Amino acid sequence: MTTTPLKIAIAGLGTVGGGTVQLLHEHADLLAQRAGRPLRLVACAALAKPAELPLEGVPFFTDARAMAGDADYDVLVELIGGSGGIALDVVTTALEKGRHVVTANKAMIAHHGVHLARLAETTGAVIGFEASVGGGIPIIKSLREGLAGNRVTTVMGILNGTCNYILTTMRESGRDFADVLAEAQRLGYAEADPSFDIDGIDTAHKLAILASLAFAAPVDIESVSCEGIRHVSALDIRYADELGYRIKLLGVASLTDAGVETRVYPAMVPLSFPLAHVGGVFNAVVTEGDFVGRTVLEGRGAGARPTASAVVSDLVDIARGRTTPTFGVPFGALAPRPKAPAGARRSAYYIRLMVRDEPGVFAEIAAALRDERVSMEQVIQRGRAPSEAVPVVMTVHETGEAAMLRAVDRIGRLPTVAEPPRLIRIESL
Amino acid sequence: MTTTPLKIAIAGLGTVGGGTVQLLHEHADLLAQRAGRPLRLVACAALAKPAELPLEGVPFFTDARAMAGDADYDVLVELIGGSGGIALDVVTTALEKGRHVVTANKAMIAHHGVHLARLAETTGAVIGFEASVGGGIPIIKSLREGLAGNRVTTVMGILNGTCNYILTTMRESGRDFADVLAEAQRLGYAEADPSFDIDGIDTAHKLAILASLAFAAPVDIESVSCEGIRHVSALDIRYADELGYRIKLLGVASLTDAGVETRVYPAMVPLSFPLAHVGGVFNAVVTEGDFVGRTVLEGRGAGARPTASAVVSDLVDIARGRTTPTFGVPFGALAPRPKAPAGARRSAYYIRLMVRDEPGVFAEIAAALRDERVSMEQVIQRGRAPSEAVPVVMTVHETGEAAMLRAVDRIGRLPTVAEPPRLIRIESL
Repeated sequence: MTTTPLKIAIAGLGTVGGGTVQLLHEHADLLAQRAGRPLRLVACAALAKPAELPLEGVPFFTDARAMAGDADYDVLVELIGGSGGIALDVVTTALEKGRHVVTANKAMIAHHGVHLARLAETTGAVIGFEASVGGGIPIIKSLREGLAGNRVTTVMGILNGTCNYILTTMRESGRDFADVLAEAQRLGYAEADPSFDIDGIDTAHKLAILASLAFAAPVDIESVSCEGIRHVSALDIRYADELGYRIKLLGVASLTDAGVETRVYPAMVPLSFPLAHVGGVFNAVVTEGDFVGRTVLEGRGAGARPTASAVVSDLVDIARGRTTPTFGVPFGALAPRPKAPAGARRSAYYIRLMVRDEPGVFAEIAAALRDERVSMEQVIQRGRAPSEAVPVVMTVHETGEAAMLRAVDRIGRLPTVAEPPRLIRIESL
Repeated sequence: MTTTPLKIAIAGLGTVGGGTVQLLHEHADLLAQRAGRPLRLVACAALAKPAELPLEGVPFFTDARAMAGDADYDVLVELIGGSGGIALDVVTTALEKGRHVVTANKAMIAHHGVHLARLAETTGAVIGFEASVGGGIPIIKSLREGLAGNRVTTVMGILNGTCNYILTTMRESGRDFADVLAEAQRLGYAEADPSFDIDGIDTAHKLAILASLAFAAPVDIESVSCEGIRHVSALDIRYADELGYRIKLLGVASLTDAGVETRVYPAMVPLSFPLAHVGGVFNAVVTEGDFVGRTVLEGRGAGARPTASAVVSDLVDIARGRTTPTFGVPFGALAPRPKAPAGARRSAYYIRLMVRDEPGVFAEIAAALRDERVSMEQVIQRGRAPSEAVPVVMTVHETGEAAMLRAVDRIGRLPTVAEPPRLIRIESL
């Protein structure tokens, strides 16, 4: 066994940084065997040194930029977060010096990954970002290495634990979005400003990274269309249950002859769908490859310990000299792919209307669907309240998105339809 | 990009060998990018050259031993099968010459893996065996590399597609084991001699390999206890359904303070269990690690294309110089672990008796359970037939295995109990 240790500097000692320090400490012997050499923490940086961490004798910096520039390390582990700022500065400094980088920072990889990949390739450094998607699930390694023999056509997943927790709790408790979100914030499962999670931005970052790996294309966060879960109501979740579906926030990337499509949206998935039973804070990713067929990887999508597991797997790879180009192929081989035209995608849909029960209203709705050649599958209407709007729920067979949107637009403008129609895609594989 | 190709020799051109040749041919450009160099097929060996494969210009051997000894290759891909014989000979020859080996041969790794690992370490060669467990699922890579930061305590899975197909079909059709097996044989899903699959031997091989990787211990196939699915009846599957369970053939390896336990057996799993919904020819593996928590990997467990995907992922690793010791740690660091004592394990159970309905019979059954402190959860008995035996089904709360076996033995000897009792473990995590 080589006895030259791998010298590690950690920038950021929050949840994930703390978990990483803990793992390196607890499993020092195990890691030395698996890595073929000791993994040694030689520096760390944070605003203040957390007293509870085993950091005795480890040089401490309050300025992460100073550590990145001055300390003597082989790998910089960036766990500060944020797409730019200090995080980007310390990573750039390390790569410019030819030092390796390990990061959990999906926003930075999504926005600056292409630039960083080029820089790393120039200086011979490696960027490990297993921890940026899916917490402890080894999804980056699986896409970059384990499925390397495949042309991947689809990668889709439940990529945000906060949203999955909220949707799971809404279903189990029957409570409304705002109520469950407030509780998640009290419990620390959602941020004070929850927009990043619930508006799908975090999922979009992760999806852009997965799509790049799957399709050997430069990360393209700008092309991801993004719809979050604010508008998912307890009523829709109840109807989904009745119809045999679960509502999940999905990130979906697909490669067809028309190009690449990357989208984040809440979808209804049938109970037989591989993601239907993934509940609470768990994440899961489905991949379709031309040789391997479908694979599903599931695990804890966040948290100190699972994320630290991912960070350390990258460190073990680097210690063993197991390297892979950032996005699986050399920088020069990353080929931008055309974006599939909007509205081309076909799927089944769920539509919920709030309708005032007046004569002729159904005829008008049916005409709007017929004129766009949208074929109805089933209709649920229960209870009548002559003076109030009542919910009418329909599912329609697979249809083009553009036609569906035109039909719903026309229905939404009917005077008898009281609220904007709710349209939710029904996902299949 | 290095332009020195990786020279590959394939021994065995059956289903998996053919799929591998096809993959190397179809994705030559993609693979060259991902591997950083071309993957070139320089020799192959089989009893006869299959006309449908793109093997033009590739030197062909009818004697695989001659190819292993004489051809000029970097990696020998062994796809002949069988734990010894030609397969072991060609692999040994390659490793002795310091050439790398990629294999799908679980029987060989289970029986000779320790010896081969030592040989490979001596000569600086690598053994890739991703294809030996779980078909296209990157489970070996995940355990050896992706979860390297964890002390793994449990690895369990559905590891044999033939058994899972039979059990799934029995449930969906209500038909009996012998009938479904005969159909599976006609369809080519089961061998003419099905014992290897249905008696759990194939699952035992795969489990022994996973346990070795998970616990950094030498492969120990002798310690795996093994029960197959021959005795699973349509009646038990029907009762399982009624009680909210599925019956699955599981391989389970666990590491506790008492030692390692490796077992193959048909178990009842609740519908909320991560393996309950894995149907047909799919395989899945659940891993519990101390940092990552639970992960689940699912995919196609066999077949030409998924298995070729796994073979080629090992080839890409070797081409890139990404190497890992055979069982995740250097040979000298593999530590034999004590075997957990038999009968110590606790679990819930399902028991089915065929009972002649005579006065006092329930009192005798209940007494046998009470005397072993086994606590009953529920009992199902329907229909009475004074002259015939009728099924009585019970589930009992978690109890020690030794006590459960003693109670069932006593019950089985009651004169009113017509057949040997069927005992099936109810699995939980």
